[in-house]
Amino acid sequence: MAQPSYPADRDPAFNLTSGPSGATPATLAALGRPILHHLDPAFGALYQQTVELLQQAFGTSQSPVILQGEGVVGLEAAAASMIGPRDVVLNLVSGMYGRGYGDWARQYALEVIEIEVPYDSSVPAVSVADAFRLRSDITVVCVVHCETPSGTVNDLDAISAVVAEHGALLIVDAVSSFGGIRCDFTVWQADLVVTVPQKCLGGTAGLSLLHVSEAAWEHMAANPAAPRGSVLSILDWRHAHLAGRPFPFTPSVTDIYGLQACLEQYLLEGAEAVLGRHRAAARAARAGAEALGLTLWARDPAIRSDTVTAVRVPAGIDERELRARARAESGVMLSGGQGDLSGIVLQIGHMGPGAYPLSPVIALTALGRALRALGVQADIGAGVEAAVSALEP
Amino acid sequence: MAQPSYPADRDPAFNLTSGPSGATPATLAALGRPILHHLDPAFGALYQQTVELLQQAFGTSQSPVILQGEGVVGLEAAAASMIGPRDVVLNLVSGMYGRGYGDWARQYALEVIEIEVPYDSSVPAVSVADAFRLRSDITVVCVVHCETPSGTVNDLDAISAVVAEHGALLIVDAVSSFGGIRCDFTVWQADLVVTVPQKCLGGTAGLSLLHVSEAAWEHMAANPAAPRGSVLSILDWRHAHLAGRPFPFTPSVTDIYGLQACLEQYLLEGAEAVLGRHRAAARAARAGAEALGLTLWARDPAIRSDTVTAVRVPAGIDERELRARARAESGVMLSGGQGDLSGIVLQIGHMGPGAYPLSPVIALTALGRALRALGVQADIGAGVEAAVSALEP
Amino acid sequence: MAQPSYPADRDPAFNLTSGPSGATPATLAALGRPILHHLDPAFGALYQQTVELLQQAFGTSQSPVILQGEGVVGLEAAAASMIGPRDVVLNLVSGMYGRGYGDWARQYALEVIEIEVPYDSSVPAVSVADAFRLRSDITVVCVVHCETPSGTVNDLDAISAVVAEHGALLIVDAVSSFGGIRCDFTVWQADLVVTVPQKCLGGTAGLSLLHVSEAAWEHMAANPAAPRGSVLSILDWRHAHLAGRPFPFTPSVTDIYGLQACLEQYLLEGAEAVLGRHRAAARAARAGAEALGLTLWARDPAIRSDTVTAVRVPAGIDERELRARARAESGVMLSGGQGDLSGIVLQIGHMGPGAYPLSPVIALTALGRALRALGVQADIGAGVEAAVSALEP
Amino acid sequence: MAQPSYPADRDPAFNLTSGPSGATPATLAALGRPILHHLDPAFGALYQQTVELLQQAFGTSQSPVILQGEGVVGLEAAAASMIGPRDVVLNLVSGMYGRGYGDWARQYALEVIEIEVPYDSSVPAVSVADAFRLRSDITVVCVVHCETPSGTVNDLDAISAVVAEHGALLIVDAVSSFGGIRCDFTVWQADLVVTVPQKCLGGTAGLSLLHVSEAAWEHMAANPAAPRGSVLSILDWRHAHLAGRPFPFTPSVTDIYGLQACLEQYLLEGAEAVLGRHRAAARAARAGAEALGLTLWARDPAIRSDTVTAVRVPAGIDERELRARARAESGVMLSGGQGDLSGIVLQIGHMGPGAYPLSPVIALTALGRALRALGVQADIGAGVEAAVSALEP
Repeated sequence: MAQPSYPADRDPAFNLTSGPSGATPATLAALGRPILHHLDPAFGALYQQTVELLQQAFGTSQSPVILQGEGVVGLEAAAASMIGPRDVVLNLVSGMYGRGYGDWARQYALEVIEIEVPYDSSVPAVSVADAFRLRSDITVVCVVHCETPSGTVNDLDAISAVVAEHGALLIVDAVSSFGGIRCDFTVWQADLVVTVPQKCLGGTAGLSLLHVSEAAWEHMAANPAAPRGSVLSILDWRHAHLAGRPFPFTPSVTDIYGLQACLEQYLLEGAEAVLGRHRAAARAARAGAEALGLTLWARDPAIRSDTVTAVRVPAGIDERELRARARAESGVMLSGGQGDLSGIVLQIGHMGPGAYPLSPVIALTALGRALRALGVQADIGAGVEAAVSALEP
Repeated sequence: MAQPSYPADRDPAFNLTSGPSGATPATLAALGRPILHHLDPAFGALYQQTVELLQQAFGTSQSPVILQGEGVVGLEAAAASMIGPRDVVLNLVSGMYGRGYGDWARQYALEVIEIEVPYDSSVPAVSVADAFRLRSDITVVCVVHCETPSGTVNDLDAISAVVAEHGALLIVDAVSSFGGIRCDFTVWQADLVVTVPQKCLGGTAGLSLLHVSEAAWEHMAANPAAPRGSVLSILDWRHAHLAGRPFPFTPSVTDIYGLQACLEQYLLEGAEAVLGRHRAAARAARAGAEALGLTLWARDPAIRSDTVTAVRVPAGIDERELRARARAESGVMLSGGQGDLSGIVLQIGHMGPGAYPLSPVIALTALGRALRALGVQADIGAGVEAAVSALEP
Repeated sequence: MAQPSYPADRDPAFNLTSGPSGATPATLAALGRPILHHLDPAFGALYQQTVELLQQAFGTSQSPVILQGEGVVGLEAAAASMIGPRDVVLNLVSGMYGRGYGDWARQYALEVIEIEVPYDSSVPAVSVADAFRLRSDITVVCVVHCETPSGTVNDLDAISAVVAEHGALLIVDAVSSFGGIRCDFTVWQADLVVTVPQKCLGGTAGLSLLHVSEAAWEHMAANPAAPRGSVLSILDWRHAHLAGRPFPFTPSVTDIYGLQACLEQYLLEGAEAVLGRHRAAARAARAGAEALGLTLWARDPAIRSDTVTAVRVPAGIDERELRARARAESGVMLSGGQGDLSGIVLQIGHMGPGAYPLSPVIALTALGRALRALGVQADIGAGVEAAVSALEP
Repeated sequence: MAQPSYPADRDPAFNLTSGPSGATPATLAALGRPILHHLDPAFGALYQQTVELLQQAFGTSQSPVILQGEGVVGLEAAAASMIGPRDVVLNLVSGMYGRGYGDWARQYALEVIEIEVPYDSSVPAVSVADAFRLRSDITVVCVVHCETPSGTVNDLDAISAVVAEHGALLIVDAVSSFGGIRCDFTVWQADLVVTVPQKCLGGTAGLSLLHVSEAAWEHMAANPAAPRGSVLSILDWRHAHLAGRPFPFTPSVTDIYGLQACLEQYLLEGAEAVLGRHRAAARAARAGAEALGLTLWARDPAIRSDTVTAVRVPAGIDERELRARARAESGVMLSGGQGDLSGIVLQIGHMGPGAYPLSPVIALTALGRALRALGVQADIGAGVEAAVSALEP
């Protein structure tokens, strides 16, 4: 490789990964604000307002909860709080994150039943219905909305209807879907949803954003093993945003600044507009990747995520080397496969600040240049042409 | 109260609390940097360099560990990882944080023995020696270096010598001491020390900074209950800073930017200079508070912290109202008592960006004005005069 | 001097100079915004809005003009544009800036008449009336509202009435008064007023802010020597803020961001509140300086500025050394005398972000410490006590 | 036009104009630094260091001068200072900026001779030699290196040799060339060169950066009409960077922060690397524009600028509408023709932060989409393919 345009010690120009997705200048400015003491009245007001903005974004009738800790903390806390020694859990596995959730569930549940499908597909709602038929004692269902490494989505509209019909509690990992793919927590009757600022909202990794239903609060309260006085406690934070209520421990003021800024931008733009640009960018990424000569990972077009596109790495190509070249020569950071998908799949993100019309053009050009540098034919012109054409609705 | 100079919805001018202590402009600028993807090579290098800077600041021969989560996460993780079902723990209690640590210790230990002293005093090393005489099976000792709400310090030099003599492991909460009060982890033979960026270093609340001795690593590795695959795992993060090692989960890139900036400033200024200005500000705060007409909380001058000064609230005065007035009329944020000390004690912080020559003058003037507004005689002139005189060594 | 707390290569903690006065964090954040192209529609809208905010702040019925260039550019441009070869100018001199304005006036006028008074006094309105009696052909009067280096003000209310009575045009240098001392451009019937962002508004040095009356526009248009196609042209910029009108040359987008932020903060706080805190800080600075043992420069209390306090340097003291010590030992930047006043006078600023209750306490403490270090008795306690007492209205 | 992806009140995503060219995050962070007082010792040191960095970037043996005021101020100041009542000026005109310079020259010179060529060509060195043959009394030659609106360059290597041979003084407008096209002020024996931060260096519009030869200093000193005590004075600022020398008036501290940051980045990257990426981006822009179906404005490939590419607007197309669509639908800001070229030409900038491998791809995609929206056939795929291929040397 000749002297790269973007040396490894210099920032890349474009973050088109599967997340964290970077942040807008307005969000970065918020992160640089002087750090108020968390007990300052100005911060109290700002925190309360942020929780209200989050509720507006969630479109729910209940106050959400902000947990201090990156998404995995929220997911672990959800398992620890919601899954007790009397719970029979149905865990849906269509990718790495679903599989991982089973490990947490098994730490706390009476029993964990799993439905696992190949990672280039998704869990059919009918399988969930079948599981309920076999085991009417299922109390909690866990599902990942968008499996980031696979770029696939589970059909929450259908699955949630089945779960609701059987009266089980529903835990949803909406980490890489909320803000990019339609999520209706109320219609789903979702009980505990975990999402984060650093994917489609374009914020920092350091908070978990939780929708918690009344039934979920009751279930946690009744769970003797639900953490309290711990970083994993959800119960401790239920009222932290209310005037006069103490914070269980020092919140990250900087992360809250960033979240407030993200939510203001999200609400100002409007959910429909935000979803629209995710859809358009996704169409362009998929059409462009195929025209470039690549194969999409998810076989069924209906399950391809609007927030991230996973493509198969051409045979004989070192996926790390490919992405390293895109980074060094074109300044574009892409994401690689994780776990079982390592070396087999790479991901083009189009979420948050990366879900704009020209984002897929940039990603495809970088990828095309890297492929050529490694001796793979890649029709960049065709890829860009297809991407641009797919942008129009 | 007339129209305040600093309304509740506007930022105060000065953070002179017991921490978080605010941040310098250079640190704030770092927090506003574009958020690199955590797998970007530029971030990998920056993370590794930050761990090296931290080791330099710690002055140790081993790589420290950065945990994702505010200080309490580090403290909880230390208990969960270091205290196993075969450990007999001696927990030293001279304040609220010491008492709280006992709760965590009891979750994991075979048995917890406590030495508790009144919260305006500290634990004598001789009491620790006595405890070992009675119970030679003590395996772990837990101690808080500086009890923030009381503004007192335990004599770690003496206590650590006793612990070392008996071959027990030593866990130290150095949250509000490191960077403001001399800490020699090596001489202490400390096994697990937890500190944070947001006190004397002037950083964000969102990380725990851990010194871990080789013996501690072995003890954790041998502890079957030590968390893995959890936000509370220390073991998972041991090698996270090494090239090619994955992060257990997404680190907060923004917090690492802030930490790097703090450490660079700390090392550039030099530990001796930093300690010197903490000592000078502390002398001024103590002398000024007494001249103002207030009584210091800690009876023994030898145990008064150089990072925070606790004073008794004059009889009949509402401590919250007093601080609210300092905030509204003078733009100065101070800290109040917590728990048992609530309403009885208030704290003037002088740590990190608040440990400069004029900081105590500002705090005392604000406090004096607020006292007067509530009808308490306060000799502001004498207070400032005493503070200024005490600045000179 | 021992190792200073604030080395010369590190930022001071407090800017309490006679201006530029520093900026709030909100203004600094605005300065760091991505630089829009000046022809971008988003910048066009922002520029127009900024001119409207400025008009609101000016409280006038006409659009003001923003010139690209620090205050002296605006003052020079005013002379070059407003003073033509047929103008007889009356220039009022009560300090260095008044004297300097005479030099510019003489470059362009038919004749310049001056009234000069000692620099610790101000020009009486009656002297202006006398001048008009002697010379009814005076067409333009030039006056400095606040003479920064002397900390004195000319009584614009009285002087402007005389000028209006005689139908002459009035040019006002309100550089260090607007935003800190009441200025009523409409009642004054002022024709061309020049002020800046970097004094009482807390902005950058890089723009001149001009109120221009209809009569002034006509006078400039009729002046064949009024600059056009030059950095000194006011006429070129008259309509630059209107949609579809080109900028005469590239404006400083960053400075406009800063100005917009300053004006939003000013209008949100409200002119009365802003003036009130300037008055309070000025009272405290004056009372405190005298109690510290210093002599105020301006003899007549009625002419002492609410934006800057000038004090006489004690005999035998090197004024530069004195300020250098305040800077090095207390982190406080003060201002020194200029020109004739060099070494004789120093200034404590209390303008913009430096006009808050504790600002004078900080300045006086720093000054007191520096005086003592040079062997001068300075009663810091008494100074602070007097300052604090004078804060209350 | 449907609801645009980038509404007019929101920032565009990409500034690919002919300048100002935007700024890197590191430069923006510098602009947001707390504003030091200009007489603070920390600023004195920073200013001096900035002048030294500029000299390094210029590669000259003499201290350069920083003037307070956007490029046109430097150009006007150069005319006012260098051209006196005894000077016969040869002004070379190959575009709008050259023509404008004649206006300034005529204000100050004894006589101005001009060579004008069509604006899609450049001035041949041989014509300059011819002019000297006819008029051996020429004392000053003025030339624009890169005519931004036309995207053309005059061959300074050849022209400067002719000027040097005849012993005349050489004034160069290097505003949009320095930092993007090789400039050797020493070999050229250039006497006064004006450039700016906001083009190839990626800084703010607010300063002029001047190389001044010893002969130029002598010529200005001997010119009785050279401004002093004016914003147009170069002489006043000659020694402003030296310790102990006063600033003629308040410099823009914020702009100097920005300049320092730009220069540090420029020198760290290295002049050769910077020039290399300008050349590569220029090749890609030109090849891509032609493949897209557009015609380049400059006929002779040898005179096409590496910093900006001018293309002819297709017949029947409204140039403003075309650029407005690129801005609204693709978030890309391009530049339009000015003056005579208005509506006929548009410019794709590739300078400073816009001179990276993918910049032309972005510009061409945006332009192609806008052309199509207006009914013009544009082969985006071919354009991008050609651009990408041209990137490789």
